[in-house]
Amino acid sequence: MARILTITLNPALDLSVETPTLAVGEVNRTGNTRLEPAGKGINVARVLARLGHSVTVTGLMGEGNASSFERLFAAEGLQDSFVRVPGQNRINIKIAEAGGRVTDLNGPGFRIPEDALQRLEFRLAPLLPECDGVVIGGSLPEGFPPSGLAALVQQASRAGKPVWLDTSGEGLKAGIEAAPFAVKPNMDELSGLAGLPLTDMTAVEAAVARVHAGGVSHVVVSMGADGVLWSSPAGILRSRVPPVSLVSTVCAGDTLLAGMLHGVLGGQPDEAALTFATALSAECVQHIGVGNPEAPDFSSLLQRTRVQPWPGQNNTGEMPL
Amino acid sequence: MARILTITLNPALDLSVETPTLAVGEVNRTGNTRLEPAGKGINVARVLARLGHSVTVTGLMGEGNASSFERLFAAEGLQDSFVRVPGQNRINIKIAEAGGRVTDLNGPGFRIPEDALQRLEFRLAPLLPECDGVVIGGSLPEGFPPSGLAALVQQASRAGKPVWLDTSGEGLKAGIEAAPFAVKPNMDELSGLAGLPLTDMTAVEAAVARVHAGGVSHVVVSMGADGVLWSSPAGILRSRVPPVSLVSTVCAGDTLLAGMLHGVLGGQPDEAALTFATALSAECVQHIGVGNPEAPDFSSLLQRTRVQPWPGQNNTGEMPL
Repeated sequence: MARILTITLNPALDLSVETPTLAVGEVNRTGNTRLEPAGKGINVARVLARLGHSVTVTGLMGEGNASSFERLFAAEGLQDSFVRVPGQNRINIKIAEAGGRVTDLNGPGFRIPEDALQRLEFRLAPLLPECDGVVIGGSLPEGFPPSGLAALVQQASRAGKPVWLDTSGEGLKAGIEAAPFAVKPNMDELSGLAGLPLTDMTAVEAAVARVHAGGVSHVVVSMGADGVLWSSPAGILRSRVPPVSLVSTVCAGDTLLAGMLHGVLGGQPDEAALTFATALSAECVQHIGVGNPEAPDFSSLLQRTRVQPWPGQNNTGEMPL
Repeated sequence: MARILTITLNPALDLSVETPTLAVGEVNRTGNTRLEPAGKGINVARVLARLGHSVTVTGLMGEGNASSFERLFAAEGLQDSFVRVPGQNRINIKIAEAGGRVTDLNGPGFRIPEDALQRLEFRLAPLLPECDGVVIGGSLPEGFPPSGLAALVQQASRAGKPVWLDTSGEGLKAGIEAAPFAVKPNMDELSGLAGLPLTDMTAVEAAVARVHAGGVSHVVVSMGADGVLWSSPAGILRSRVPPVSLVSTVCAGDTLLAGMLHGVLGGQPDEAALTFATALSAECVQHIGVGNPEAPDFSSLLQRTRVQPWPGQNNTGEMPL
């Protein structure tokens, strides 16, 4: 099994609250309430650990409320190598009413110390030679420059390790300029990168080509219910997900990314790797939390996930959305 | 210094969120966000520890999110003897808008195991001989019978330890029937006990007399800005708090109770004990969190806190509220 290092620069505590209705200015008795450590790199790490890989998690961690994270790392068998910084990790509250209305309250995180990038680079130095691949996932904390993210991509690349980057906005732009091995944008992120709306598959392909032109070998576009497009030097593959009953898409992208790493680092044929990753991501959206490769219906999902070269015979350029 | 045992049956994680306005159904970027372990017995314990006492905390603790509590106990030097139960401690969210409107979202807690009372009694058995006093503080978790609270009061009393009870509703009624050494109702709780509105001091005194009649030696009535009434076999004392600028009353009652235990177990004269406890409670309302005996203005608050016998020369029965 592979040894993987995931980097999360902006971890969060996600608090999900279910309530019949939200009465503002009143005392509301709520239903199910869950507090869960989150952050893309951490989510990817959890899935990879469940798939049997040896995973080290690093990044920046507010020491004020680190204990929920530490407990999770211990429970999931993740090696904790986070750089501690003063202050609290941000807390994001999601209030879901029975009628479907969702109110988000996203809190501020720790203040970035001036030497944050330096400390991260120092922490990465001994970890990089010991890993087979690097994931950099999630948003940049306020005050952390996009150029800092690019520096981390370069450090890992210089160490000869493939970097899988999953972020958005300015961080994604700056990260791509540092030519990571792979990026996993969703349609919104890809559209932001291309600077134009992706109204048809020609536009998607053009946007993907632009990412490749920057020196990125693998572009994995997560398209929600429309599956995944994986563009690499070997060509373009498109997966289609079986119909599932949707509960939460929160960890779907992270699960997809973990599944891709599992297949690619494990030397699976491309079709098999994409089928596995897509099916695991479909498993994920059926419940709260990251995808579970031991779910009873996973083998059925796997059998019902289709992968074809793109554009295929029946896929002559129509928009998948 | 004294050895004190505090019991919290229904601990909570308090999450305070400050936001300019709360836009329902939207993504809100919030300001200051604080997640803090709470529960009356735990708050009282924190103040007592700051006053130099040796404090053990016990009660029921959901193991699912115990780590924030464990971290607090370690940081404040509290001996952790909580009985772990499956599930999560309740999370209470308080969203404060800049305009003053407050929205509360109070979550459900763990499910009470059938053997909860038995396990608590078993846990208390070796702890009681080692302490000088017992505090039972806070609400009862759903499914924990008021008779169970009475059983705990009786167990401590049989061990010869004075029990200070601070709860409300049916728990307070059942607890008083077990004749604890002291209770600390606020005006609402005292009114609930008496079964009538406390429209003047005659009614307050009648209600206090009724509590004494059940076998309770000390009744400490916290009256907010109107100070504290302490009725004991030695008579009735009334304290008046100096004017303070109010920020939060959340921990004021817990701080008062801790201050009273500090004075009474320390053998202070009654007037001195009540003055200290009242002043510390006044210190507490000036900020978020429990009272701080090392606050720079505490000695000034102490000097400006007045205690007199009740009814005094200038206190002939008028309503304090």
